[in-house]
Amino acid sequence: MKATVITIGDEILIGQIVDTNSAWLGQKFSELGVKLHEIISVGDDAVQIIDALNRAKSSSQIVLLTGGLGPTKDDITKKTLVDYFQTELVLNEEVWEKMKQIFEKRGLKVLEMNRSQAMIPKACTMLPNTRGTAQGMWFGIEGVVFVSMPGVPHEMKHLMETQVIPKLKEKFSFPKIIHATIMSAGAGESVIANTLNDFENDLPSNIKLAYLPDLGTVKLRLTASGDGDELKNEVAAQKEKMKILLGDFVYAEGEEKLESVIGKLLIERNETVSCAESCTGGYIAHLFTSVPGSSKYFDGGVVSYSYDVKEKILGVKNSTLNSVGAVSEECVREMLEGLLKATVTTYGISVSGIAGPDGATPDKPVGTVWIAVGSKEKIVAKKFQFFPSRMENIRVFSNAALNLLRLFILGKLN
Amino acid sequence: MKATVITIGDEILIGQIVDTNSAWLGQKFSELGVKLHEIISVGDDAVQIIDALNRAKSSSQIVLLTGGLGPTKDDITKKTLVDYFQTELVLNEEVWEKMKQIFEKRGLKVLEMNRSQAMIPKACTMLPNTRGTAQGMWFGIEGVVFVSMPGVPHEMKHLMETQVIPKLKEKFSFPKIIHATIMSAGAGESVIANTLNDFENDLPSNIKLAYLPDLGTVKLRLTASGDGDELKNEVAAQKEKMKILLGDFVYAEGEEKLESVIGKLLIERNETVSCAESCTGGYIAHLFTSVPGSSKYFDGGVVSYSYDVKEKILGVKNSTLNSVGAVSEECVREMLEGLLKATVTTYGISVSGIAGPDGATPDKPVGTVWIAVGSKEKIVAKKFQFFPSRMENIRVFSNAALNLLRLFILGKLN
Repeated sequence: MKATVITIGDEILIGQIVDTNSAWLGQKFSELGVKLHEIISVGDDAVQIIDALNRAKSSSQIVLLTGGLGPTKDDITKKTLVDYFQTELVLNEEVWEKMKQIFEKRGLKVLEMNRSQAMIPKACTMLPNTRGTAQGMWFGIEGVVFVSMPGVPHEMKHLMETQVIPKLKEKFSFPKIIHATIMSAGAGESVIANTLNDFENDLPSNIKLAYLPDLGTVKLRLTASGDGDELKNEVAAQKEKMKILLGDFVYAEGEEKLESVIGKLLIERNETVSCAESCTGGYIAHLFTSVPGSSKYFDGGVVSYSYDVKEKILGVKNSTLNSVGAVSEECVREMLEGLLKATVTTYGISVSGIAGPDGATPDKPVGTVWIAVGSKEKIVAKKFQFFPSRMENIRVFSNAALNLLRLFILGKLN
Repeated sequence: MKATVITIGDEILIGQIVDTNSAWLGQKFSELGVKLHEIISVGDDAVQIIDALNRAKSSSQIVLLTGGLGPTKDDITKKTLVDYFQTELVLNEEVWEKMKQIFEKRGLKVLEMNRSQAMIPKACTMLPNTRGTAQGMWFGIEGVVFVSMPGVPHEMKHLMETQVIPKLKEKFSFPKIIHATIMSAGAGESVIANTLNDFENDLPSNIKLAYLPDLGTVKLRLTASGDGDELKNEVAAQKEKMKILLGDFVYAEGEEKLESVIGKLLIERNETVSCAESCTGGYIAHLFTSVPGSSKYFDGGVVSYSYDVKEKILGVKNSTLNSVGAVSEECVREMLEGLLKATVTTYGISVSGIAGPDGATPDKPVGTVWIAVGSKEKIVAKKFQFFPSRMENIRVFSNAALNLLRLFILGKLN
């Protein structure tokens, strides 16, 4: 079973957009037990598209195309597919009526350009796109399936999840595969790998463990080739073993972010959180507020970048800043006390560190950070030392702070 | 002149990483006047790599490879290149000595695995990598240049800029091309296109205009094929014309972000800024603090997500929140007044809106935002209506707020 992805569009080749669709499709196929054979990006050019289709057909049973279906580019890609599959375009009345209704509703005039998007190749099965005007198209030839989808990521993903993957599963028998994922934080890849060394060596040969580190978190994925309740139970048992070995490093089962796990904990408990950020400069607040519905538990916070804001809004003592400096246990404790006094929040986080490239001192190199978490009753402060560059530090500091808060809420931080 | 990019690595095909190298290389070649012919991503597999090399050789004069050179994968990619170019690996003593020194300095033991990275194919010109242990390799065969580089983005970019591009310019005559870029904000692509309609029609046929919209900004790039002072003067004159037509929409020449332009303005004037954010939830603070050195002019701010923080820290009146609501002119004015009272900042920004998906009311749909900017002397508030989804709204709101502040600082907002 092989699959090839072809992404079409001059904007990819001139670097105007980063092709994120391929990585997403790669993940989806990986979950289905298939590693993509190849990803090919070509321009809006019929000769190149046909060349890519031929190459993909010779190697793969599934060929996924994204992009090149917008109204202005319509002619090239759809026309190329029509030529390739020796078919013709027919107006789909239903699509056309719907399109006219949508335009009318928005008070816009439907253009001839738009009508071309309701022209569908006769030889394909149309996959209705409920989120845009470019329809999905499913062609079959010589046992190979070609699916053409719009390049707009959320339209493509919706088509894949609701229509393409179910249809592919009907037509092909994918390798039987079982996945189990847990998320960890608070330890780097090497610490996790070291902890799991014997566990990994003892894994049955049909179960593999993958480490997928991100800034401050490590995703652990068990993959087993095969099927049946026995194997499912075996994978589940191995996952439990791994969870026990990793203990408090584990923050979730399945793919999930720290900010969303904390959000769920707070909703359960009917509690709230706020933050006082120096070096992370609003990024922790941004992580919290990136989650839809976070207003239920996120109160807000203070970005105390300057000494002035630290003193005036958070009440950090001038003497603290002048004696031990902003990157100190005393400072993050005072920041957090001030924050909890100024708000009616259950929990708070405060962070002060050196993200770089400037601001380092001999005893506080770039990557040094103090983090405090706590409530009105109790505050815990910890110092960390990370290595990477400014943007990476901002992210890794933020994840470290979120993880400390998680442990604090769970009563596991002393 | 054609160029192909081959990115190598199983991690790309399973979607573990998004290939950003290709887009960056696409941009670089676009600046050199060459549109990439094709981007091919293959796994760590000798047969596939050779197939991709052959295809690239038949279409292109320049073939750029990234990835697959880490110590653990070393065998496959470098060995494949050695086979393809019928050469052999030789230990490069200089590279090996340097590597040992670096490891010693860090107190680490150099491993046999690392020694393999000092083995360099005899037939290539080595391009020393000062930022990592995988060296660049330049091969030439039948008039085609193949350059293999590490996949770590900052290592690859540094090699490209300091060594590969200069060498390519020596060897090939690239199409003569002149670029001129200006950045605009405060108007969507359609407004900008409408304003520039006649200008674009009147452009000399050898000068093209491209619109590159992002969330809240539009990059405008003039590209002329050719060379010489006359053409340079012509492009410069057209750029000036465009600047006059677009007036205050123009915020920079060359590629630059709003937060960095504002930073420079503030440094010049020895002034500072802070922000009070509701719906943008810390993202504006994050944009400011993403710029190294921003502590010179960014004081910080308040993320007033809840009513409580709005009232207690910023002093927004309870009666305002209960009568006209948080998404109102009154609220953003009070947020900003409170912020300017609580800090000693020259300028402030405040934002309150509905990022979605929840929180909309019949008269305040998702995408509604009130933004105030100002100083102790004067505050200006504006309402905007945007359309996209939550994450896009957070970004587009933030850019709109930064642009208003820019205009305010320049005395152009009334």
